[in-house]
Amino acid sequence: MIPTLTWTDDGVRFLDQTRLPLEETYVLATDYGQVADAIATMVVRGAPAIGVSAAYGIALGAMRSRAESAERFAPEFEKICARLASTRPTAVNLFWSIDRMKRLFADLLSSGTPLIQMQKKILAEAHAMYAEDISACKAMGAHGAALLPQEGAVLTHCNAGALATCGYGTALGVIRAAVERGKRIHVYADETRPFLQGARLTAWELMADGIPTTVICDNMAASLMRAGKIQAVVVGADRIAANGDTANKIGTYNVAILAKEHGIPFYVAAPWSTIDRATPNGDAIPIEERPHAEVTHHAGKQLTPNGVGICNPAFDVTPSKYITAIVTERGVLRAPYIDALREMELVAG
Amino acid sequence: MIPTLTWTDDGVRFLDQTRLPLEETYVLATDYGQVADAIATMVVRGAPAIGVSAAYGIALGAMRSRAESAERFAPEFEKICARLASTRPTAVNLFWSIDRMKRLFADLLSSGTPLIQMQKKILAEAHAMYAEDISACKAMGAHGAALLPQEGAVLTHCNAGALATCGYGTALGVIRAAVERGKRIHVYADETRPFLQGARLTAWELMADGIPTTVICDNMAASLMRAGKIQAVVVGADRIAANGDTANKIGTYNVAILAKEHGIPFYVAAPWSTIDRATPNGDAIPIEERPHAEVTHHAGKQLTPNGVGICNPAFDVTPSKYITAIVTERGVLRAPYIDALREMELVAG
Repeated sequence: MIPTLTWTDDGVRFLDQTRLPLEETYVLATDYGQVADAIATMVVRGAPAIGVSAAYGIALGAMRSRAESAERFAPEFEKICARLASTRPTAVNLFWSIDRMKRLFADLLSSGTPLIQMQKKILAEAHAMYAEDISACKAMGAHGAALLPQEGAVLTHCNAGALATCGYGTALGVIRAAVERGKRIHVYADETRPFLQGARLTAWELMADGIPTTVICDNMAASLMRAGKIQAVVVGADRIAANGDTANKIGTYNVAILAKEHGIPFYVAAPWSTIDRATPNGDAIPIEERPHAEVTHHAGKQLTPNGVGICNPAFDVTPSKYITAIVTERGVLRAPYIDALREMELVAG
Repeated sequence: MIPTLTWTDDGVRFLDQTRLPLEETYVLATDYGQVADAIATMVVRGAPAIGVSAAYGIALGAMRSRAESAERFAPEFEKICARLASTRPTAVNLFWSIDRMKRLFADLLSSGTPLIQMQKKILAEAHAMYAEDISACKAMGAHGAALLPQEGAVLTHCNAGALATCGYGTALGVIRAAVERGKRIHVYADETRPFLQGARLTAWELMADGIPTTVICDNMAASLMRAGKIQAVVVGADRIAANGDTANKIGTYNVAILAKEHGIPFYVAAPWSTIDRATPNGDAIPIEERPHAEVTHHAGKQLTPNGVGICNPAFDVTPSKYITAIVTERGVLRAPYIDALREMELVAG
């Protein structure tokens, strides 16, 4: 199991994803501010992993508090939540996780729980979210494996793997589950500029599992599709709006269009916590603009001329019409997603 | 004028495009083998520039020959041509240029021209090709400028500029001509992985001309198009088949599909020497596979895990159905290209 993030007595230990694949090093966040920094600087990234990281950040903030009572901790709790919420705007799992902790805190406060009990319950909730994340990934794999061909190649973009979750992965969980069921899958991994999550992270974790993987530049996908070399696309998600429009790593929308043009199915795999029914459609999803140095520099070397304009949106939105199916831990959804999401919400309660 | 390649008494001087944009350094090729190396290692690149470089390489080989007569030079001439032809397989301008020199040589040989006269005529032919290349770019600009909007943004991929030609450029020549005619054009330059011709070269030469330019990662084009930020696409070409199918830098086909999906016109600009009527369609165009280190490493730093599979096709083929128009020095061609090309061939003689 890849230790993407681990709770320890000293704090939250993160596998430093900015250093992979050549260096397997760890960062120990000993207070909630350091957890927030780890999220903002992408030491840990991936919507589900960010959500659980924030939960542990809140737990760490609660454990480290010097407040004398639960009531006195309340304003500090708000500050902790606000700091963690300010790290990254697009992945809704972050806000889902913080909201869940806020609801728990409100319940504990109103029932007069002492701070020491509250701290234990907050940490237990974070641990529960960690465990739920892994079991959701396994369930996504079980539901999604049937969508992939018995033998063939699957293209993925960015990293929606064990490194983007507490383990197993969403899109890569579907691939892992297919392989575990005896399917012979070759993975093409878009390198995913500018942060190279595909080249660095997806390639690293799939090779560790012995799943044959080829890294391609993002701009090579169309010619591979035209040559008949790709049978399916599966990606993760950072936020799925009520109508199925899906925000995911920049370039996902490009891949979705290319898949449609070549008649290749395009699947999104994400836990239910990525679905944001309060956001009606993709236009309402905030898109993070990341530092321009991610585009202009690599390994300290400048790539572009001084002063040139740069764009660096971290995400784009794929309209639901390009999405063949959405795989969640509750099952596989098909268009029209607005109805499918509502029905599954009702069924699951 | 950007000195992409220059004939000097000491050999062919190339602006080293592997070092731009931060270093403006030059490489002097003092024999034809060094010219071949400059082409193979992409010190000089771009289909038209490669064609003229090969012509100067042949001229350099002829000037440096120690043969005692034209007849004795003949096998050496064949060897020079073969060496230059072996550098890069896709851009047809290379073979067009070498064939033109072979025809000249055959004429000179059959008419009993002495070697010293032959050398002068071969060099004069290379100089003529250099001058023709610049005038073709200017003519492409004059024909193509009308296709661009009075005000708006144009996306380009790779570098089809002054640096890909002897000056002015093909796709960027069209943009330059539009700007010279008072159009207000903002350029979005795909960074163009893995060799980053867009980030490094297109950005550098457009900034030198004061044309506002924004570099984007290749995977950002679709979201910009969806946001209405791109009014036209214009790219160069490495080989245009008889039916209009066009080989160009890897990723061009991706952009063409995205443009079609968003209803944005997609233009190809290339000199007549890029049209290969002997190649019936895109499937017959050989696609160069470049060294995998271009994908796996940058600035000496390894990006990918050891042993992962890599693809690095240098080009892809855009089927003619995605191409709104092809701009040549003879005029603007529209589909069906097989007829348009035949007609223009007849008109021009």
